[in-house]
Amino acid sequence: MDISLASILDNLLSDVWFELTFLLVVSLFASLIFARFGQPKVIGYIVVGVIIGPSILGIITPAEGEVTGLPEVIQLLALLGSIILLFMIGLECDLKEVYTKRSIAIAVGGVLLPWVAGFLVADLFGYPTTDAIFIGAALVATSVAVTAGVTSELGMIGTPVAYAIIGAAVVDDVLGMVVLSIAKNYPGNSVDPSGILLLVGGAVLFIVLGSWIGSRFLTKLVLRVQVSGYRRKLPMSGFVLVLSIAFLYSFIAEIIQISAIVGAFVAGTAFSGSVLRDGFRKGMQYLEALFVPLFFVSLGVVVDISGMLDAILFGVVLTVVAVLTKIVGCGLPARLTGMKFWDSMAVGVGMTPRLEIAFIIAYVGLSSGVIGTDVYSVVVFMGLLTALFAPFLLRRSLERGGHALLQS
Amino acid sequence: MDISLASILDNLLSDVWFELTFLLVVSLFASLIFARFGQPKVIGYIVVGVIIGPSILGIITPAEGEVTGLPEVIQLLALLGSIILLFMIGLECDLKEVYTKRSIAIAVGGVLLPWVAGFLVADLFGYPTTDAIFIGAALVATSVAVTAGVTSELGMIGTPVAYAIIGAAVVDDVLGMVVLSIAKNYPGNSVDPSGILLLVGGAVLFIVLGSWIGSRFLTKLVLRVQVSGYRRKLPMSGFVLVLSIAFLYSFIAEIIQISAIVGAFVAGTAFSGSVLRDGFRKGMQYLEALFVPLFFVSLGVVVDISGMLDAILFGVVLTVVAVLTKIVGCGLPARLTGMKFWDSMAVGVGMTPRLEIAFIIAYVGLSSGVIGTDVYSVVVFMGLLTALFAPFLLRRSLERGGHALLQS
Repeated sequence: MDISLASILDNLLSDVWFELTFLLVVSLFASLIFARFGQPKVIGYIVVGVIIGPSILGIITPAEGEVTGLPEVIQLLALLGSIILLFMIGLECDLKEVYTKRSIAIAVGGVLLPWVAGFLVADLFGYPTTDAIFIGAALVATSVAVTAGVTSELGMIGTPVAYAIIGAAVVDDVLGMVVLSIAKNYPGNSVDPSGILLLVGGAVLFIVLGSWIGSRFLTKLVLRVQVSGYRRKLPMSGFVLVLSIAFLYSFIAEIIQISAIVGAFVAGTAFSGSVLRDGFRKGMQYLEALFVPLFFVSLGVVVDISGMLDAILFGVVLTVVAVLTKIVGCGLPARLTGMKFWDSMAVGVGMTPRLEIAFIIAYVGLSSGVIGTDVYSVVVFMGLLTALFAPFLLRRSLERGGHALLQS
Repeated sequence: MDISLASILDNLLSDVWFELTFLLVVSLFASLIFARFGQPKVIGYIVVGVIIGPSILGIITPAEGEVTGLPEVIQLLALLGSIILLFMIGLECDLKEVYTKRSIAIAVGGVLLPWVAGFLVADLFGYPTTDAIFIGAALVATSVAVTAGVTSELGMIGTPVAYAIIGAAVVDDVLGMVVLSIAKNYPGNSVDPSGILLLVGGAVLFIVLGSWIGSRFLTKLVLRVQVSGYRRKLPMSGFVLVLSIAFLYSFIAEIIQISAIVGAFVAGTAFSGSVLRDGFRKGMQYLEALFVPLFFVSLGVVVDISGMLDAILFGVVLTVVAVLTKIVGCGLPARLTGMKFWDSMAVGVGMTPRLEIAFIIAYVGLSSGVIGTDVYSVVVFMGLLTALFAPFLLRRSLERGGHALLQS
């Protein structure tokens, strides 16, 4: 047999095309089935990931030292999906509505309460302090991707409730990174206040400057390129430039240690006022269709149910704590800043899903040797359960609040 | 510093987003500049690749043992671009018009003449027989991607000339794989006629069966899924399924040892009669805008000008032979099957660009140790030059033939 580089490359790529086909087809049919029963397609994708992952069918199983078992290139496409999703959500968000005192109050409440409560519960169950700090940290950050996906599917984008949820989720993603850096540095007692200040300062600076430069200068540049390209039969020029800017913002966000998707979101908000927005939105929908399912499937594939079962009681308690602390920690500030009761409830409920951020935090803890696979599995269990319940709870709260929802 | 798996992954991905931004922005501006001077954007992309590659700026330089110096994930996105491009071209092609006796006659003429002539010229320049066979083989296959891209940009898709060129280019891609397998097996004198027959038989069977199953059954399946998805607010369902089918066909094509892009092309032709074609075409344009530039840039990045300069005379002679043998070898069958003189000339000229297939053949020869870097560089030189000249020559021939071209 031929074992040249070329043939190995060929085989690898064959597998990638096949894997793409497979993942797209199963997630497509899952979305159709879930839509049939009025459930968000996002949950369908995650369930597909759990089913094909090591938990159930084991079609996609991580090798020694791997996290998802998906080829690196598929994981990249999944990340591309998360960037496109957050950029699109950003496109729908009016800048001033997102970074409000209300969002910040909701985020702060939704970070402090879960962290403290998570730590105490873990301590109660006898986990060592280092583990307990990580478990608390994993409860901190709401999954922007899930909340954004769910509010978008319910047709809530543009409403005060959605603004409060997404704005607070973005802010608490930033705070989550701060908490993570504290948790990572705890074992050596080397928490460096100036380093944390630098991290927070950098994040705030990026969000403010990125929004300002984007909406002030880059929208004009993109418009000019689009006009020039259109004249020369290159009608996609503006679209390509906007994508490049989304990737650049994602890159910068990772450089300053916040999540790439926060960068994509900031880029999206910067272009929310562009006259080309509708065109961008239309084009992005096609990229979304291809890549976003891969992202949510990849989140589901990480789950290992057997690992969870070993600590099922703690997992259930932790999940309940995770849900209640967000409802109180976020709902209360929402109510105190003047929202109606059921809207405040919707904000609290909408903030409950932890998924990719909890997984990332758990993964960092695992790979840096601070926590073991038992704690990792519990965190994953909690992250998945909160993400699975949130859409039901959110829909219920919104209906109670008298909102007209999209029939999905 | 943190050297955990997570942080390494983070760094890697940061680089990918940055590299994506960089490649998209430079290729966007190259396309605008080339369009300004009435040149196809495809050539702009390749030139960008050459400029940023090791030849000139050296921004992207292959490490020891690598071919392009681009990260594997970017290469995958580039291949995704080639698949999307060929699928889109396939969408424009009426099945019966492509696989005609004329296309086959043109392809056979354009395979035999360049192979024999390339072998003789290499022999004349004193290259050993094994090298000469490979050099000849590299002249065999027309670049479907370049011819398709150029005819599409000139607004020729759907005309008999374009059908003849693309049909023949597809057929000679299949023949090129046969020639490659002969060349690869030559050194040990172990040319296995039954193996070659199997390869050709498999390819023909795939094209016939793939077209038939696709146009007969899969279009109906996709239509049904689209209708069902549309009802459930999942209007991208048909689009996602069509993409999956394109990937599946690409996978199957690679399995049976023909190029993935041939598979994508066959998938495209199968859906050329679908009522959803216009919708697919519109969506594909957004994917094209993102990924196709990466494909052409990646082809340019492989080039190493310094390696070419060592054998510049042979390179020039080989390029002239490559151009003339396709003009005669393809133009003559075109004329004999009843095309007008300048149309036959356009077919011959349109068949001259060798690029990705020549590179692949040269790369296989290099990595399997049959040819050295000198021969490799000469083949790359020839491949690039023919691709650079073809658009000019094709435009000229078509204008002489009285065709109305798109002003690009």
